[in-house]
Amino acid sequence: MPETRFDVLGIGSAIVDILSRCDEDLLGRFDLVKGCMALTSAEKAKKIYDAMGKAMEISGGSAANTMAGIASLGGTTAFVGKLGNDKLGEIFRHDIEAIGVDFHGGHKPADLPTATCLILVTDDGQRTMNTHLGASTTLGPDDIDEARIAASRVIYIEGYQWDTPQAKEAIRKASRAAKGAGREVALSLSDPFVVDRHREDLLTLIRDDVDILFGNEEEIFRLYQADDLATAITRLRGADVLACMTRGAKGTVVFDGTQTIAVEAFPVQKVVDTTGAGDLFAAGFLYGYTHGRDLPNCAKIGSMAAAEVIGHMGARPEADLRHMMGKHGL
Amino acid sequence: MPETRFDVLGIGSAIVDILSRCDEDLLGRFDLVKGCMALTSAEKAKKIYDAMGKAMEISGGSAANTMAGIASLGGTTAFVGKLGNDKLGEIFRHDIEAIGVDFHGGHKPADLPTATCLILVTDDGQRTMNTHLGASTTLGPDDIDEARIAASRVIYIEGYQWDTPQAKEAIRKASRAAKGAGREVALSLSDPFVVDRHREDLLTLIRDDVDILFGNEEEIFRLYQADDLATAITRLRGADVLACMTRGAKGTVVFDGTQTIAVEAFPVQKVVDTTGAGDLFAAGFLYGYTHGRDLPNCAKIGSMAAAEVIGHMGARPEADLRHMMGKHGL
Repeated sequence: MPETRFDVLGIGSAIVDILSRCDEDLLGRFDLVKGCMALTSAEKAKKIYDAMGKAMEISGGSAANTMAGIASLGGTTAFVGKLGNDKLGEIFRHDIEAIGVDFHGGHKPADLPTATCLILVTDDGQRTMNTHLGASTTLGPDDIDEARIAASRVIYIEGYQWDTPQAKEAIRKASRAAKGAGREVALSLSDPFVVDRHREDLLTLIRDDVDILFGNEEEIFRLYQADDLATAITRLRGADVLACMTRGAKGTVVFDGTQTIAVEAFPVQKVVDTTGAGDLFAAGFLYGYTHGRDLPNCAKIGSMAAAEVIGHMGARPEADLRHMMGKHGL
Repeated sequence: MPETRFDVLGIGSAIVDILSRCDEDLLGRFDLVKGCMALTSAEKAKKIYDAMGKAMEISGGSAANTMAGIASLGGTTAFVGKLGNDKLGEIFRHDIEAIGVDFHGGHKPADLPTATCLILVTDDGQRTMNTHLGASTTLGPDDIDEARIAASRVIYIEGYQWDTPQAKEAIRKASRAAKGAGREVALSLSDPFVVDRHREDLLTLIRDDVDILFGNEEEIFRLYQADDLATAITRLRGADVLACMTRGAKGTVVFDGTQTIAVEAFPVQKVVDTTGAGDLFAAGFLYGYTHGRDLPNCAKIGSMAAAEVIGHMGARPEADLRHMMGKHGL
C-alpha cells in the first residue's frame, strides 16, 4: 500500500459563499425551501442577489468545509475541486491553501465563473442555499489523480456531486481507485432533495463502495424510506456501513452495524448561522476516525466542531479546533 | 437653497476589505505599523495576501462605512466612489445599495481593479491595513456632480483622499460646491500618517471649508503639533471648526470653539476587530447632527455605533443601529 499523505481527501464543489441575514418573507418570494439547497441559474441567482441585503463573502463548499475543519483539528487533508479563472477562484484557492489543505484544481481550469452560493440566514440561524455551480460543473474523471486517492486514508464525497453527470463519473472513478488501494470511502448525503433526486444512485454507491455515511435525520429517513429512528436503524443493519446521523439539538446517533451510540449535542451559546454544521460534524468525526479514537469520541469531536461553526457566520471554523479539542478534554 | 435629498453625502475610496486574523509577527515581517493604513503596490499586496490566513471579504472604505452607519441609523445618504468593472466592484455596489445608500460611481467606470484593503486583525482586536487603491485612484473632478453636492446637508470627506492628486482636486471641487450652496463640510483625518503626509493641505482645507472635523487623539495631536489635550484644545480654539476627538476606551472629546464636552466610551463586551470604529463614530455623530440632536447626544450616538462595529469582524454595522439607539434611549 502506498504511503499515506493525507488523512482525508475531499472531492466536491469549490464554492465561495455570499452570506446575508434575511427575513423569512424573502424565502417565500423566491419559493425557497428553508434549510435546503437549490441549484440556481445565473438569472435567478442575480434576482435573489439583488433582493438580498448586504453580504459577506467567505469560502465554502461542503467537502471543502470538512477539509478545513480537519485541518483546523490538526489532520492532513487534500481537496479536489474546479475553479474559474477569476477573483473568486483566487479567493477560494487562497483560503483553502492558507489553512494547510493541499488543493488540486484538476487537470485544467474551467471556462466558467467560480461557483457561488447565495446563503440566506434567517433570525433562527437556519440557512437556505442557492447555488450557481458554474466552474464546479466541469469536474470530471480527468480531474481525478488516482495516485492522490491511493495516498489518502479516507476519501470524502459530497452527495451534491450527483447533480452533475461528469462529477458522478469522477466520483465513481475516485471511489473505485480508493477501494482498489484498500482505502475507505465516506459519503455525505448533503441535502434531502439530493437524496430524493438520486436515491437509487446513492444506494448503489453505498452498497458498492461506501464505508462511512453522514446525513441528518431527514436525509437518512428519505434514503431508507423510514419514518422513525428504529426503522432507519433496522434498514441500516443491512447496509454494511458505519452511519452517522446528525439530529440538530437532539445530538447524533452513530450505528456501526450492531451497536447504536447516541451522543448529545455540544452546548452552543447562540445559534448564529447553521451553515456548515453537517460539514463540521463530519470533519470532527473523520479526524477522530483517522486518529484511532473510539466511535463515541469521534462523534463528540464532530459535535464540538459543529457547535463552533454554528456560533458565527460562515461555514468554516474561526476558532482553532485543535486547541478547543484540548480544552474540552477530547 | 435646493431641496435636501441627503442628510450626508460621502466621498471616498470604494474598497472591499479582505479581513484575516493574524499573529503579531506577520506585521513585523512586512514592516507594517500596527493600527495604521499603508498604501500597497499590487506586488506587495500579493505577498501579504499569500502570507495571510483564510479571510473573509466584506465591503468597506472609510466614508462608505460612515454612510452605511448613517443609513442603519435611519438617515438618508449618498456615496461617491470609483469601482473597477469586476466581481469585487459588483460586490461593493450590491452591498452599499442593499442598505439604501444612493451610490454614484462617477462619470465612467475605471479600467483598474476595484480597490482592496488587506486587513490584519491581531488578538487584541487592533487592525492594520494595507490598501491597494486600484480603481479608487481614478476619482477626479469630473466624477463630482455639483447638483448632488448641493442637495446634501453635509458632505463627508476622507483624509485618505489626499493620497491621490486627482482625488484632491475632486474634493476641492466638492467642498467649494458645498460651501457655495450653503452646505456644511465634514472631514475625517483618517490616519496619523495621512496627517503627516498632507498636514499643510489639510490645515488649508480646514481653514477654508471644513465645519466638522473628526480624528482620533493621535491624528489631531499631529495635525496641531500638540503633545497633550489642553494644547490641542488651545490650537483648535483658533481653527473655527467643530472638532470630535475619539480616544478609544477613554471616550470622546467634542470641542465647539468654546465648550469642551467629554463623553464616555460606550461599554463593549469584547473588542473583536476595531476596523471601522472611527468611521462609525462619525456616522452616529453626523446622524445626530443632521437630526437636531445636541452635541452630547450626537457624541453618544457616535460612541454607540462605534461600540457595535468593534464587537464583530468587518467595518460596517451588523446590528440595526436605529433599533439599538431606541433601546438605549438615545
